[in-house]
Amino acid sequence: MAGMAGIVAGESAICTCGIGNGLNYRGYDIADLALKTDFEEVAYLLLLGELPNKIQLKEFQNKIITGRQLPQELKDVLKALPASSHPMDVMKTATSALGCMEPEADDFSDQMDVITRLLGAFPSFLVYWHHWHVNGKEIELRSDERTIAGYIVERLKEKTPLEVETRAMNAMLTLYAEHEFNASTFANRITASTLSDIYSCMATGIGTLKGHLHGGANEVAIKFVLGFSDVDNALKSVDKLFAKKEKIMGFGHRVYRDLDPRSPIGHILADELKELPTSDPKLFDIAVAIRDKVKAEKGLPDNIDFFGGLIYHYMQIERLYYTPLFIMSRAAGWAAHAFEQRANNKIIRPDSEYTGVEPREFISLDKR
Amino acid sequence: MAGMAGIVAGESAICTCGIGNGLNYRGYDIADLALKTDFEEVAYLLLLGELPNKIQLKEFQNKIITGRQLPQELKDVLKALPASSHPMDVMKTATSALGCMEPEADDFSDQMDVITRLLGAFPSFLVYWHHWHVNGKEIELRSDERTIAGYIVERLKEKTPLEVETRAMNAMLTLYAEHEFNASTFANRITASTLSDIYSCMATGIGTLKGHLHGGANEVAIKFVLGFSDVDNALKSVDKLFAKKEKIMGFGHRVYRDLDPRSPIGHILADELKELPTSDPKLFDIAVAIRDKVKAEKGLPDNIDFFGGLIYHYMQIERLYYTPLFIMSRAAGWAAHAFEQRANNKIIRPDSEYTGVEPREFISLDKR
Repeated sequence: MAGMAGIVAGESAICTCGIGNGLNYRGYDIADLALKTDFEEVAYLLLLGELPNKIQLKEFQNKIITGRQLPQELKDVLKALPASSHPMDVMKTATSALGCMEPEADDFSDQMDVITRLLGAFPSFLVYWHHWHVNGKEIELRSDERTIAGYIVERLKEKTPLEVETRAMNAMLTLYAEHEFNASTFANRITASTLSDIYSCMATGIGTLKGHLHGGANEVAIKFVLGFSDVDNALKSVDKLFAKKEKIMGFGHRVYRDLDPRSPIGHILADELKELPTSDPKLFDIAVAIRDKVKAEKGLPDNIDFFGGLIYHYMQIERLYYTPLFIMSRAAGWAAHAFEQRANNKIIRPDSEYTGVEPREFISLDKR
Repeated sequence: MAGMAGIVAGESAICTCGIGNGLNYRGYDIADLALKTDFEEVAYLLLLGELPNKIQLKEFQNKIITGRQLPQELKDVLKALPASSHPMDVMKTATSALGCMEPEADDFSDQMDVITRLLGAFPSFLVYWHHWHVNGKEIELRSDERTIAGYIVERLKEKTPLEVETRAMNAMLTLYAEHEFNASTFANRITASTLSDIYSCMATGIGTLKGHLHGGANEVAIKFVLGFSDVDNALKSVDKLFAKKEKIMGFGHRVYRDLDPRSPIGHILADELKELPTSDPKLFDIAVAIRDKVKAEKGLPDNIDFFGGLIYHYMQIERLYYTPLFIMSRAAGWAAHAFEQRANNKIIRPDSEYTGVEPREFISLDKR
């Protein structure tokens, strides 16, 4: 019963994970979606059930691009949040503040517009706060860049993204976009089930994703890989960890026993990115060697977080921003689940088993 | 399965509701707690498992009183949130922003200090934002008032609270403080289960409570009572609603079939408050007549929200602030559940039943 493992909490038509070791969004294989589409197509698919045609995609992208602009009051909020803030708390605060400024309609008739606006605004929250506090300047949020993936790289790193970077970011956004009733998605559905607004659903998702048992595994995985000077050194350390029966982050998965279907895609992307002049290709070799050893000796396959961390490292993304990028991706899945919950709603209120003290006599403060 | 009704999602030692129609916090009867203690004693009980003695209570109250002060940056955030904001969104934004400014320690060693600070800060969030945007002035947050209950009335209404008002507010805060695995509490436990911070847990609770299926029922109940000019008029309208088989807010409860143990306390308090010179005692008569009729003809007992709305109305609290007051109360329950989850944690991740499309062939954008 602990953690509700194996307990069916509801129905969903959005995603299958673990069937034949696969991962499908709305019936489509993750490998096709990750490497053959822009993330916007995947977000549209998750939210509305079908892949967009060219006209639908263009309209959706245009709205996302418009959504990059932030009202002055929201910029004031971002300026007031200290440079030392956890970026996940910044994302949550900005999401909640935008809900004060541009509330969703009570009848949810604009739910698609609101989430589209948020998909545009999420990268702006991060890059605006980042450049204000780290570089002491206001970043321009307007851009001709069409995709969310390209925009993130362009505005965060202030450079024209390379094709391989946009491709990798697109794939990463898609790979992390949806995963059934994970903790943040399920918590977000409970928020939706009281008929709260979509900003509140997103804030629940963000706050839940922040915990290091959920988001953040790719941060830990790359820190581990970065700790080694070469392959030999890495393999010896893994032996020591095996001897101490310690867990290595980025391996094993509650659902995927033989293979995380996202991992081979992560491997391809890391392999491409290691060729960048700014990349240290040795890290890739170390990662592959660790992966092969853990699989061979413990039977544990690597999960998406193992190469995922290396991908962001090669793209020179700040490590504390890996989980905020996860938000920009998973928000599509969260909102799809919120919409689904709303469409056939009953408030989610389980029972608990009482393990506390028996009824007892009240004692007044005078006698305590 | 819908809404997880009857599904046991975990263990808890905090509260029993529905056993013998009772409601106990940590084994103590709600009737004793509501009328014989200050809310601070109840919050302490929920968080730590035992009622405080005088020294413990004083120390706890002193920390709460200190927690009323807000950093300048947080005041700046509150000023940036528009006057048109939903007060629940203001509370959520301020909670999240304070988490940026005064983060919880990663090992949770200061969790009790953080929630104590928040119990002090919650009323400040509301009264600071309220007076800035409604009255165009900065309210002084410092006060000699010892209790949260008295402070809310004092700062919101800018007057010395009457004894009956402090008594009623104390009782209301206690009555709404905890209720087992309700939606906001359960969602908050999921956030805790990823090992996220307590501010994130509170933000999840607030966002989930906001939905009108959860918080807000007392707002609707008093609006209903206010719609009638006299008892006869009210009873005729109830007959019409019965004929149309419409639901009357403030009646019936998923758990309490015969009696909501909080209702008689609400009845006592409303009866006391109706004697205030600012109160219209006729509203009480109308409420009692409706309660008796619904019980007699439909067998449905009134729940706490029915007289709860009238109590706040008699105290001249703005209707949109009823649910923010619910936060100031339920936060104690949420945090107690977050602490309990942390003490014996496993990430909460249920299964779902897939009802979507079968696997299908990918179609590239060119062919859509």
